[in-house]
Amino acid sequence: MWRVFFTSAVVAVVVRSAMNWCDSGKCGHFGAGGFIIWDISGGQEDYSYQELLPVAIIGVIGGLLGALFNQLTLYITKWRRTYLHKKGKRVQIFEACLISLITSTVSFVLPLLRKCSPCPELETNSGIQCPHPPGTDGNFVNFYCSKDNEYNDLATIFFNSQDDAIRNLFSAKTFHEYSAQSLITFLVMFYSLAVVTFGTAVPAGQFVPGIMIGSTYGRLVGMSVVKFYKKLNVDEGTYALLGAASFLGGSMRMTVSLCVIMVEITNNLQLLPLIMLVLLISKAVGDFFNEGLYEEQARLKGIPLLDSRPKQVMRNMNAKDACKNQKVVCLPRVSRVVDIVSVLQSNKHNGFPIVERGQNGESLVIGLILRSHLLVLLQSKVDFQNTPFPCGPGILNRHNFSDFVKPASSKGKSIDDIHLTDEELGLYLDLAPFLNPSPYIVPEDMSLAKVYNLFRQLGLRHIFVVPRPSRVVGLITRKDLLLEEDGNTATTELQSTSVRSILSTSCKLSFSLLRRNAQN
Amino acid sequence: MWRVFFTSAVVAVVVRSAMNWCDSGKCGHFGAGGFIIWDISGGQEDYSYQELLPVAIIGVIGGLLGALFNQLTLYITKWRRTYLHKKGKRVQIFEACLISLITSTVSFVLPLLRKCSPCPELETNSGIQCPHPPGTDGNFVNFYCSKDNEYNDLATIFFNSQDDAIRNLFSAKTFHEYSAQSLITFLVMFYSLAVVTFGTAVPAGQFVPGIMIGSTYGRLVGMSVVKFYKKLNVDEGTYALLGAASFLGGSMRMTVSLCVIMVEITNNLQLLPLIMLVLLISKAVGDFFNEGLYEEQARLKGIPLLDSRPKQVMRNMNAKDACKNQKVVCLPRVSRVVDIVSVLQSNKHNGFPIVERGQNGESLVIGLILRSHLLVLLQSKVDFQNTPFPCGPGILNRHNFSDFVKPASSKGKSIDDIHLTDEELGLYLDLAPFLNPSPYIVPEDMSLAKVYNLFRQLGLRHIFVVPRPSRVVGLITRKDLLLEEDGNTATTELQSTSVRSILSTSCKLSFSLLRRNAQN
Repeated sequence: MWRVFFTSAVVAVVVRSAMNWCDSGKCGHFGAGGFIIWDISGGQEDYSYQELLPVAIIGVIGGLLGALFNQLTLYITKWRRTYLHKKGKRVQIFEACLISLITSTVSFVLPLLRKCSPCPELETNSGIQCPHPPGTDGNFVNFYCSKDNEYNDLATIFFNSQDDAIRNLFSAKTFHEYSAQSLITFLVMFYSLAVVTFGTAVPAGQFVPGIMIGSTYGRLVGMSVVKFYKKLNVDEGTYALLGAASFLGGSMRMTVSLCVIMVEITNNLQLLPLIMLVLLISKAVGDFFNEGLYEEQARLKGIPLLDSRPKQVMRNMNAKDACKNQKVVCLPRVSRVVDIVSVLQSNKHNGFPIVERGQNGESLVIGLILRSHLLVLLQSKVDFQNTPFPCGPGILNRHNFSDFVKPASSKGKSIDDIHLTDEELGLYLDLAPFLNPSPYIVPEDMSLAKVYNLFRQLGLRHIFVVPRPSRVVGLITRKDLLLEEDGNTATTELQSTSVRSILSTSCKLSFSLLRRNAQN
Repeated sequence: MWRVFFTSAVVAVVVRSAMNWCDSGKCGHFGAGGFIIWDISGGQEDYSYQELLPVAIIGVIGGLLGALFNQLTLYITKWRRTYLHKKGKRVQIFEACLISLITSTVSFVLPLLRKCSPCPELETNSGIQCPHPPGTDGNFVNFYCSKDNEYNDLATIFFNSQDDAIRNLFSAKTFHEYSAQSLITFLVMFYSLAVVTFGTAVPAGQFVPGIMIGSTYGRLVGMSVVKFYKKLNVDEGTYALLGAASFLGGSMRMTVSLCVIMVEITNNLQLLPLIMLVLLISKAVGDFFNEGLYEEQARLKGIPLLDSRPKQVMRNMNAKDACKNQKVVCLPRVSRVVDIVSVLQSNKHNGFPIVERGQNGESLVIGLILRSHLLVLLQSKVDFQNTPFPCGPGILNRHNFSDFVKPASSKGKSIDDIHLTDEELGLYLDLAPFLNPSPYIVPEDMSLAKVYNLFRQLGLRHIFVVPRPSRVVGLITRKDLLLEEDGNTATTELQSTSVRSILSTSCKLSFSLLRRNAQN
């Protein structure tokens, strides 16, 4: 955490220095711009308890619209995956072009249909001009209005970069800039476009469109608040901000992080309590209908995301119940290559327990080997041996640590890609040097809720379910883990890892491999 | 987390409403005041890269002074505990009185020794008056200065509430308010007093004094920055804020939380990067010497705090090594009372494995019982039975869940407090209904670093070290834990916890107890 923290601090300082340097005009086109900060200073600095009702309403709207957004995007993504994207990559490109065409048309044509409005009287020291001069960005876009003191309110949102549109929606002291009709038109169109665009082949982002949608209905609510609570010092821009928070909360369902983001991008701490309330209400309303946007999409992709808490039903299940549908496939320590290949072909398990005969003839689970590591070993072939006995020392010198690392951008190897001759299939492979010697284990009758917590907290991928142990070798408490730097090291040095004593034959274990395995 | 978040939001809104209501004067003495916010607006809004050097210096000073503070308080607390507090509670009261007397004397006498300074010229619209009128709080305290336009700079810090003193130190646009001599005098005196006061019988707090110390030397550095970088728009108050952050960082060693607190209490986001840098530097410098204040004190109290990472040496140790100094004391499922008493008297273990003969005569570990639960059972006596056979049903009706809860304010029961007759000692006790049927287990040769992570992440108190398992019953992966709400529940309902099948005799397990145990 403190590394992230340190990096952020350095980034902030460097960016600030670079911006200062660029302010002198030495950076050409990079000189303009800066942080995306939608400053709402100059607007509302305080709030009264009467405003809690409209704030709650914004939260509820955000929850409803956010949940609807998640549901619609889920349906469309499913439909895309099932029908559209099977027809090849050209369809994806065509789809993206079509949507961009629709977006452009709508953005240009809709404002043309609106009538121009006369400019309101503005405070001279607010820095806002109506209409703003050509070539600059800002509120009150003239668009094709004929008269000099007129502006088109729909073009002020549509015909702008999204950054500027948000800045205009958030802007303070610009009462009655937008008509309710324009805002509703924009909301409907933009919401539909956002739903359709999400999941196309274009990396369009979800954050800024979300703020756009939210700030539109937020400003709508703000306009009615201004109308009904005339005595209060209320600003429409503040409500646009709360609306943005509510839609993001209703769609993404994050609370604390979104709150920090909203405070950061508006540079305003005063409205923190209202933002918190709005986020919580919208999250609560949204959770009533479905899960967050990212959870839904990740689930659709088949990523096994675990909720933060085990399901209620897990309290009455135990570890054995969770794995009773699948048969465990074990491998002996020294396996025939043909056996390994047939095991890998016959199932899709990602990890296999390795079993060995102990000194007294009883079987002993000596560790877990990953499918991906087996595939690497089968492909490299250097470890194949003629005898079914444990290998000699030095086997690890043949491998590089990096051989076992899965490339980030590949789908991983498959057993079908590996071709072995009949001669090779008859050879043996000693798996001991490559296994994870101590995966986490749970007794078979442990509550599944406890197993679940183990998975979640430690970020595991495999757990061995073992029979109830017959005896307890030791009992570790917290105090046993408080090794004195000076005290216990003497006894420590003498200890060798008894992993070695169990795999007592001769294979030297590479610590780097062990450590990698230890991460499971 | 979201509960805390929601509570904070509600608190903020309620306090704000109450404050609004009190502003109308309806609350009497409660009307004054508000949030403790040391507003630094009006001061520095920006920073340049030349300021990074003085900021780094502040960080280093904070780290050094913070580490020294931790070390000194550690020594003094040790000394107090060994010599002073053994002499009775009167000594503690006397000590507190003595320190308060010294503090008062120093606060009053030291300013008297300083000469009065003439008031500087202040901007008329800054709202600061020199000296401030009697009966009000603020900068430029007149104290016993004879002339009307003079003030005593040491009294401005010393002879004020700590809140106001900090506000004065943070205040912007008050250049040359303090002389370096006064600040150094204050720093030395206040630092010594803070060291001596920490750990007395008075709840004095550590946060506000820390800010006082830090802002003093911060302002000292700020004064020299103002002197050396004359061209920059630098404010002494900003450096006082950074100094405060650095001392807290150097002493408490928190980064993110302190950063949030500093931003909150100053209501200023602009200086966030500098605060982050200062916190990190002071933490890094402090960590070079010792641990944080709270860690040191907790360790002194014997609380087994675990660091966030396992020690390097643990990588080469295994689970068995950690518990080899202690013999595990097991209890049979149905134990004689006299045996339980002698086990509890003979050692200080807090948990005991329970062992039972299985159906085939082999021994089986059926769970863990806590010392505290055993003591409750021994004290209540209602479960004592005549026969050495497992108990009948209904035993749990004799107990209330709350019987097993340790009162928050007690030291817990001791075996010496429980008196049993010879007759009672001869009876038996079936422990099965009261044990934790599935504590976490690790194989004896698991790397101690992995065990450590298990402890830390799950917040455990006991772990069973068991022999390497002989077979794997099942293998759980993440996908097995993604129960479909509709799919798998059918199979689930049919399962009974096989804990019951193991304790197959007749005792019904109370789920409330089980769940409590499950939290270990």
